[in-house]
Amino acid sequence: MITAPPSLVDQYCHGVLRTELGLGTFEAHLGSTAAPPAPGTTFFDTQTGFAVRRWCPPLLGLEPHCPPARYLARRRELGALEAGRRLLRGTGIATYLVDTGPPGDLTDPGELAAAGDAQAREIVRLELLAEQVADTSGTAEGFLANLGEAMHAATRSAVAFLSVAGVRDGLAFAPHPPGPGEVRGAAGRWLAGRRAGGLLSDPVLLRHLLWNAIGCQLPVQLRVAGDPEQLTEFAAASAGLGTDLVLLHGSPYHAHAARLAGLFPHVYADLGPAVAHTGARAAAVLAGMLELAPFGKLLFSSGARGLPELHVVGAHQFRDALGRVLGGWVADGAWSRPDAERVARMLSAGNARRVYRLDADERGGRSAP
Amino acid sequence: MITAPPSLVDQYCHGVLRTELGLGTFEAHLGSTAAPPAPGTTFFDTQTGFAVRRWCPPLLGLEPHCPPARYLARRRELGALEAGRRLLRGTGIATYLVDTGPPGDLTDPGELAAAGDAQAREIVRLELLAEQVADTSGTAEGFLANLGEAMHAATRSAVAFLSVAGVRDGLAFAPHPPGPGEVRGAAGRWLAGRRAGGLLSDPVLLRHLLWNAIGCQLPVQLRVAGDPEQLTEFAAASAGLGTDLVLLHGSPYHAHAARLAGLFPHVYADLGPAVAHTGARAAAVLAGMLELAPFGKLLFSSGARGLPELHVVGAHQFRDALGRVLGGWVADGAWSRPDAERVARMLSAGNARRVYRLDADERGGRSAP
Amino acid sequence: MITAPPSLVDQYCHGVLRTELGLGTFEAHLGSTAAPPAPGTTFFDTQTGFAVRRWCPPLLGLEPHCPPARYLARRRELGALEAGRRLLRGTGIATYLVDTGPPGDLTDPGELAAAGDAQAREIVRLELLAEQVADTSGTAEGFLANLGEAMHAATRSAVAFLSVAGVRDGLAFAPHPPGPGEVRGAAGRWLAGRRAGGLLSDPVLLRHLLWNAIGCQLPVQLRVAGDPEQLTEFAAASAGLGTDLVLLHGSPYHAHAARLAGLFPHVYADLGPAVAHTGARAAAVLAGMLELAPFGKLLFSSGARGLPELHVVGAHQFRDALGRVLGGWVADGAWSRPDAERVARMLSAGNARRVYRLDADERGGRSAP
Repeated sequence: MITAPPSLVDQYCHGVLRTELGLGTFEAHLGSTAAPPAPGTTFFDTQTGFAVRRWCPPLLGLEPHCPPARYLARRRELGALEAGRRLLRGTGIATYLVDTGPPGDLTDPGELAAAGDAQAREIVRLELLAEQVADTSGTAEGFLANLGEAMHAATRSAVAFLSVAGVRDGLAFAPHPPGPGEVRGAAGRWLAGRRAGGLLSDPVLLRHLLWNAIGCQLPVQLRVAGDPEQLTEFAAASAGLGTDLVLLHGSPYHAHAARLAGLFPHVYADLGPAVAHTGARAAAVLAGMLELAPFGKLLFSSGARGLPELHVVGAHQFRDALGRVLGGWVADGAWSRPDAERVARMLSAGNARRVYRLDADERGGRSAP
Repeated sequence: MITAPPSLVDQYCHGVLRTELGLGTFEAHLGSTAAPPAPGTTFFDTQTGFAVRRWCPPLLGLEPHCPPARYLARRRELGALEAGRRLLRGTGIATYLVDTGPPGDLTDPGELAAAGDAQAREIVRLELLAEQVADTSGTAEGFLANLGEAMHAATRSAVAFLSVAGVRDGLAFAPHPPGPGEVRGAAGRWLAGRRAGGLLSDPVLLRHLLWNAIGCQLPVQLRVAGDPEQLTEFAAASAGLGTDLVLLHGSPYHAHAARLAGLFPHVYADLGPAVAHTGARAAAVLAGMLELAPFGKLLFSSGARGLPELHVVGAHQFRDALGRVLGGWVADGAWSRPDAERVARMLSAGNARRVYRLDADERGGRSAP
Repeated sequence: MITAPPSLVDQYCHGVLRTELGLGTFEAHLGSTAAPPAPGTTFFDTQTGFAVRRWCPPLLGLEPHCPPARYLARRRELGALEAGRRLLRGTGIATYLVDTGPPGDLTDPGELAAAGDAQAREIVRLELLAEQVADTSGTAEGFLANLGEAMHAATRSAVAFLSVAGVRDGLAFAPHPPGPGEVRGAAGRWLAGRRAGGLLSDPVLLRHLLWNAIGCQLPVQLRVAGDPEQLTEFAAASAGLGTDLVLLHGSPYHAHAARLAGLFPHVYADLGPAVAHTGARAAAVLAGMLELAPFGKLLFSSGARGLPELHVVGAHQFRDALGRVLGGWVADGAWSRPDAERVARMLSAGNARRVYRLDADERGGRSAP
């Protein structure tokens, strides 16, 4: 085994719930869907559920794999706040990059930083930003001007943009921006038909947002439904513009995302969802991704949302998998030990520090007191 | 290693051939296609062929990995019936769910149960049922009425429907049933142009069958050519109607099937084809599927057809892979031993007993005398 | 561990560069793309880079994993020619099948054979042949006649054709040849608009080339961009014509290629790119492919181009992976030792000798003096 890296940058996560949780509410956060578990089954019986039961009880003073009901009782005894502090401080995460949308009862980056005794920086969700701007804009022209200003303002405080256009509309990845007249027309139609709080799903506006973000020089994280191959033309069209793209894809598409990161200098791939959700198989998944992209193009994340337990699992699964995979290769003579330790630091934190300019750039980042 | 589970439910298999087999006929059942082996190659040189030579000779009193010709000679010496009895009784399968179509010289569920000293229940193939009804129906109206009656009758004796519509026509998975007029028109055209025994490939009738089956409350097994992603909309449209879907997909699509099982409460995935055909790599494949769906959504099958050797291989590969994977995780501390034993029972039999209501429901199941 | 097979047939590779290389030029050959590495990253930090540093320094008298700069210094000290001789003679490759196009400053098959003390045979790239014929043909009729002659001449000296039509135009895989009038028209239009040296990308002519090659009875290697599933209809249409197809696909499509090799008697799959580029994970990838196709349908290659280091890595990764995978299965009792050694010889050389008729056929093959 190699020495564990000293700290992690979690390049994509959310805040945690502030409220006390019952068994059912807790379980709902362990599934890969908003749908309930099938009759006769439980989301505790998943690799995520088993991983929570492996890593979290010891951080609250219980034995690993204790029954869910016992764990939840201890969690309530400590209170959500104190349990969250103990769990987050057990992750080894030094910096959280936090997706702050859509709104919900989740801690903001400052609260997460305080609870975890860590740094936290904001990731701004483009579509949510546009929806918020629309809520206070009267005309199409006003909306577009305000949107431009809001994006520019975001570049001063946030470390990355996030686009979920690929989830709402695959065509958003047309390999060129829409024309100004097209954008004005789409904005007018959207605003006219929209009620306050209405979601943005107009394909022209989604593309406008995405290409505007490309112009802002802040890294753009992309969430896509389905196969990331559909991103190939967009990646080719956005190459050489000085803006990095970070693909957030879970199993079974992580391999394709890593492959795109191998093909395009400005494309990076998230290790998180594939490793964090695969439980005991995380080592094989991590090894698979290391074959497809240069080691400088892959970044750790927990992808956690709602439960601090998921930040714990993401971090522990990743460290454990990294130790097994790289340690095994060192033992076989395939890798040298100094190389393995260097790559471990790159994947854990170094690549994220470089891509998101976390060291050089101190534009209003929030940190723990 | 964990203790082997006491018995299996084979949730998808066929009967076995009644005739004596020569080397060539036997070999033809080891390939993944009806085409012959390439010149200079043999289907014995496949993971399936090697797995047969590993597990089966000892059940007939020979050493593992003996040459194919020697194994076949011993098989003929015992006779197909006695060899089948010894092989099936060596599987550890307590209940076979048997796809009884299309017709061929295969044992029926009662014979399989008797040979294997086990229970056997029928899976009714929808398209075959419609073809049989068409053989005895005159008019479109008569055909549709008789079909409805035949499906209703099947729900009293069978444990599941099977649709191969996705093999015959991908569009069968349109996310809504066809209208009554559309169905009558399609039935009329099909009957008018059909000779006795003609196959059903009309997309409207395939969809009608599938949605009628959804209304029958019996689980519907789906065989699909190609990527199960094409099922996503159909799965969404059929959710919440009280009927479970079980996806039968082999490598390399098993991961996508497991993923759909993770997304939709009423969708389940077959572990069989991916594990049974992967020979020595079955453990890695099984581990991969456990990462994508809750443990309550995955079901063992042998997928075997024609050769009782394939029932043996399916069962032994599965038990062996299960023992390795779960045993390894227990040894690492990733899983607790009681959890591993519980999940082993779920995958081996418990999930199938629940989904197919094998315990509660005694609607005319055939069993060994 | 099983005994290493005595020698390899490298069924797909290129020549090596004749010039001395600096650190940057060398590094450029380690990436999976022509694009430069991302700022702050290097292609030495890839599984390929680490594998080069594992296997090659000892062949030049250095310790494994020495720093890239030290390795390059030693390489220049020996000179490109002598370093190439030492590296190629360390591969264990007895026969190289060499893709000789497109032109570049690479050694030809004769030089590669001499440097490596091995046999070398030519693979003729169809599109390049057509472009060369076009450079010296005036009319469409003359071009088509000359092309037919050139292809016929190639069958006397080459061991295989290679088509990259699937990279230039996916539609080239329409499941039937274009008609003669269609071909004449396309040839006329292409020649009229073409400057000397112009690339062929006309879909009708690409299809004409491909189907003409099918008629020549020489195995046709296919390079395809993206998912080989798009080849399914073409494979079905070209079955039974006496010409073998060999799919050259790298990760993540190797599994689909192996699957097609399992479905069609005349389709084979290349083990090379998937195994050679996966570094320390090669064993898992090799095991995965063995599950999908009969062992007689998979062929080793290095896929190397430009750097003799890549021939070394391809050969060593393959032998190492083969030893681990088959050796592990023998240790588990899943395979017998004689079977494992026999399959190792098939994958290493025997399958290629049979498919490319390397023993029976001595049509002008070039060999070392």
